[in-house]
Amino acid sequence: MQSHIVILGCGFGGLFAAKALAGAPVRVTVIDRANHHLFQPLLYQVATAGLSAPAIAAPIRQILEHQKNATVFMADVEGIDTSRRAVLLDGAEEVAYDYLIVATGATHSYFGHPEWERDAPGLKTLDDAFEIRRRILLAYERAERETDAVKRAGWLTFVVIGAGPTGVEMAGTLAEIARHTLRGEFRRFDSRQARVILVEGTPGVLSTYPPDLSAKAKRQLERLGVTVRINARVTGIDADGIMIGDERLAAKTVVWAAGVAASPLGKSLGVELDRAGRVPVGADLSLAAHPEVFVIGDLAAATSDGKPVPGISPAAKQMGRYAARCILHRIGKNASAPFPPFRYIDYGQLATIGRNAAVAMIGKLRFSGYPAWLLWLFAHIYFLIGFRNRVVVLFDWALAYWSFERNARIVVGTKDGR
Amino acid sequence: MQSHIVILGCGFGGLFAAKALAGAPVRVTVIDRANHHLFQPLLYQVATAGLSAPAIAAPIRQILEHQKNATVFMADVEGIDTSRRAVLLDGAEEVAYDYLIVATGATHSYFGHPEWERDAPGLKTLDDAFEIRRRILLAYERAERETDAVKRAGWLTFVVIGAGPTGVEMAGTLAEIARHTLRGEFRRFDSRQARVILVEGTPGVLSTYPPDLSAKAKRQLERLGVTVRINARVTGIDADGIMIGDERLAAKTVVWAAGVAASPLGKSLGVELDRAGRVPVGADLSLAAHPEVFVIGDLAAATSDGKPVPGISPAAKQMGRYAARCILHRIGKNASAPFPPFRYIDYGQLATIGRNAAVAMIGKLRFSGYPAWLLWLFAHIYFLIGFRNRVVVLFDWALAYWSFERNARIVVGTKDGR
Repeated sequence: MQSHIVILGCGFGGLFAAKALAGAPVRVTVIDRANHHLFQPLLYQVATAGLSAPAIAAPIRQILEHQKNATVFMADVEGIDTSRRAVLLDGAEEVAYDYLIVATGATHSYFGHPEWERDAPGLKTLDDAFEIRRRILLAYERAERETDAVKRAGWLTFVVIGAGPTGVEMAGTLAEIARHTLRGEFRRFDSRQARVILVEGTPGVLSTYPPDLSAKAKRQLERLGVTVRINARVTGIDADGIMIGDERLAAKTVVWAAGVAASPLGKSLGVELDRAGRVPVGADLSLAAHPEVFVIGDLAAATSDGKPVPGISPAAKQMGRYAARCILHRIGKNASAPFPPFRYIDYGQLATIGRNAAVAMIGKLRFSGYPAWLLWLFAHIYFLIGFRNRVVVLFDWALAYWSFERNARIVVGTKDGR
Repeated sequence: MQSHIVILGCGFGGLFAAKALAGAPVRVTVIDRANHHLFQPLLYQVATAGLSAPAIAAPIRQILEHQKNATVFMADVEGIDTSRRAVLLDGAEEVAYDYLIVATGATHSYFGHPEWERDAPGLKTLDDAFEIRRRILLAYERAERETDAVKRAGWLTFVVIGAGPTGVEMAGTLAEIARHTLRGEFRRFDSRQARVILVEGTPGVLSTYPPDLSAKAKRQLERLGVTVRINARVTGIDADGIMIGDERLAAKTVVWAAGVAASPLGKSLGVELDRAGRVPVGADLSLAAHPEVFVIGDLAAATSDGKPVPGISPAAKQMGRYAARCILHRIGKNASAPFPPFRYIDYGQLATIGRNAAVAMIGKLRFSGYPAWLLWLFAHIYFLIGFRNRVVVLFDWALAYWSFERNARIVVGTKDGR
């Protein structure tokens, strides 16, 4: 009987693990709660109406169609029973495994204020992106109907909390929407009156970048029209605005990009989690008590050469590929031979800010502005999974770049009166 | 003070009315519950995962951006007070008008069985299309997880009720998905096992077409793999299937394409409606008691040369343009001169069935099969509003045609356990 390898989650980590098992004499089952793999680095483009959902998402079973040893299930995982080596799905269904790769990633964290989520949604899934897109577009629609200037200002104030890569992208794009995309379309106000405020608790934006790039990113944001508030601690969020310390800021649209917490599935592994809820793993990314269980991607607290592995997509891909190879080694003929520990290879970091604006670090090289933006653009299109999507995205972007239009300005979903 | 013309609904009728008022010395307010104009003839492509929503929808205020006499409000219309010449919006807001054009179209009708809607959604809006897409894709996902053969057959049976143009398109495309798009992607069954059943109460499909074309359409459907049940009266629908007379048909996915009823807004006009809920209008499309109120599109029971005007998009466009011109005539210098009654110009009818399969009538000419399909394809791409969309749709279709793939196979929205 062939070994059965179950992979939970089909983000970058899970997908690359599955693909690395292609052609191997094993059975693979990939389980994800969605039917699609999502190219998360471009999710903010769906949230800001620049791309349609299908442009950045591909059905998992289509990606793995020709990998005949792989079965795909769309299901919610309710728990993991490591003692019985079984995964519990919704509907009380169980899937037994010989090896398990847990790659369920991270979710939003509101730092002990779960009640903030209602008025400040985060951005992790396509549903999140649709919800944020809906709020942004509806805010402008409500502003057009509003005759009271103070109330209208609330509809025209957009706050992004957290100046990591996602927050910076969101803020830069929101400013472009106000200044360019929607300009001339309203009769009771000029869309350029809209304010975009990026709120960050630390002393700088993109705090994982060196200070000079962080400062450049802040200047680029300001040039695009974003008000950047650093050292600003958010103390409250409600339907009409936020509190920064004791200061009230009226804003009907707030996006949360400040914190992530590891997937709650880590809890069912029976090991002590770190402060961010991540699962500490050994040098081969498996659990000390259960060497047949691997944890990869944002859910793993992994180290490489003594340094923590960052929670970014290239790291997840590398971990996925490594875990698959490690399993194949263990069930192979040379299982008794040593297998090298996981080593993270740093290809650099890139963050986009807006039109012609980005920062990049590749080894010792640092870029900013237009060259960094071009690099970001081509890197992202290159890594988009699926040929069609790449072409569509490139085409959509080329048109959007020249026309300043955004092509997915469609409100769908239930209205909640906002 | 310029006359204020309020247009309710921005489908084909409302949009063409608004555009016909461009440059005129009037104020125009367009009110729609959605932020977008929808190219409804291609909505089934979104429901069957062939096109993304933004490909067939464009923001109304973007379409009317350069028409400076037009203001766009996204709002729900709660009622019309013809005596005070005012429209009541959600939020207790009122909009006064000098002339009103009501173009709110039609919705689904379940022939006195509103309880069927839950298990057999209809297709009118993008939200409807997403819901149907979700149910179709999830049915295959559930079939892959199902180990019981009888239960799996229920997940793999797709019923379309009503063989008008929408039902025929849906059934033909569902058959193509089963036979081509999903082939090879499942491990526990072959997607070609899926059954698509088109249920029609009358003796033929596409009953508004002549008998020879109707018969050809039925044969084309059968060649694509659709089981066509004519003279079949649906007597019950629940979560697990339908009843045809006393016969039980197990099917987890049912789509309603059988009946439409005029928009409920017709009731607030204070006139007696016809049996389909439509508003009887005079020769100039206005109300006898309120000549300043025009009703156009699917909501109107209009006649042209003594014959009823059909509820199709070319008719709605012509009515929209006519109503606008009639109003401009009445407020113009020659208002006392007679204005000719509305005349519907029949450019023909086209219905698509599936790949290379369609039927068409243009004057006395009749086509079917590949030539009709090509005609349908180019007519629809030509009439798509907005240059970008046309190119994107053509591009998506060309790729889909050659690859048999469908590019929007993304499940979004809340799961209800189906």
